[in-house]
Amino acid sequence: MLNIEHIGIAVKDLMASNTLFSKLLDSFPYKEEYVESEGVKTLFFKTGQTKIELLESTRSDSPVASFIEKRGEGIHHIAFEVADIWAEMARLKSEGFVLLSDEPKKGADNKLICFVHPKSANGVLIELCQEIQTPE
Amino acid sequence: MLNIEHIGIAVKDLMASNTLFSKLLDSFPYKEEYVESEGVKTLFFKTGQTKIELLESTRSDSPVASFIEKRGEGIHHIAFEVADIWAEMARLKSEGFVLLSDEPKKGADNKLICFVHPKSANGVLIELCQEIQTPE
Repeated sequence: MLNIEHIGIAVKDLMASNTLFSKLLDSFPYKEEYVESEGVKTLFFKTGQTKIELLESTRSDSPVASFIEKRGEGIHHIAFEVADIWAEMARLKSEGFVLLSDEPKKGADNKLICFVHPKSANGVLIELCQEIQTPE
Repeated sequence: MLNIEHIGIAVKDLMASNTLFSKLLDSFPYKEEYVESEGVKTLFFKTGQTKIELLESTRSDSPVASFIEKRGEGIHHIAFEVADIWAEMARLKSEGFVLLSDEPKKGADNKLICFVHPKSANGVLIELCQEIQTPE
């Protein structure tokens, strides 16, 4: 676990939340991205080393849609940057954590990602992420 | 807003969560602190620039106790480090955010703190914090 790469916040209306978080953070988002696999539109803000990712669901059966239905808008996950996602997944599994996938998936922001089940982490949805290296 | 200083996580049993987060983060907490004003015992982990603060309530009427009663264990707040907490409080107020106190309070980890009401920030409890400078 190198550092907290970003914090994901589930919102109902990305444009309204853009206005709100731009005021709150006194800055503008630097990136918008649609992640089909997760069924979300995202907006990224920079705040020091850790980013804020706003997530709006694009379909009613997405994980973010179920989260909002159950708990309302709010903090959805914490993402830790790791140097070797496969090694970290193996380490956490051996420590008894439950992973939501057996292999890393392609996430937003050019990352390989894997989630740890919140039931095994005090109700906190943890994401592991690793930048995808592209050959030059 | 300079950076995300820490993320606060509400837990029921600080010792059990210490074991869990030590495994998760593959490191040990560097500080334990009792904050009487907030009715919490806290444990701090370092992860890059952003700390993880585990919070266990010490009385049944504390904000963390009500949070757990309503929502269960999980991410409780995000704390942003600011250079001038009075100026930032004034700026946010003028932008329409609702602050939970009119003046900064003494929080954990030698900080002046102030919370922004989650109703005015998409369900996210935001803390502003500023290191208390002590004359040498």
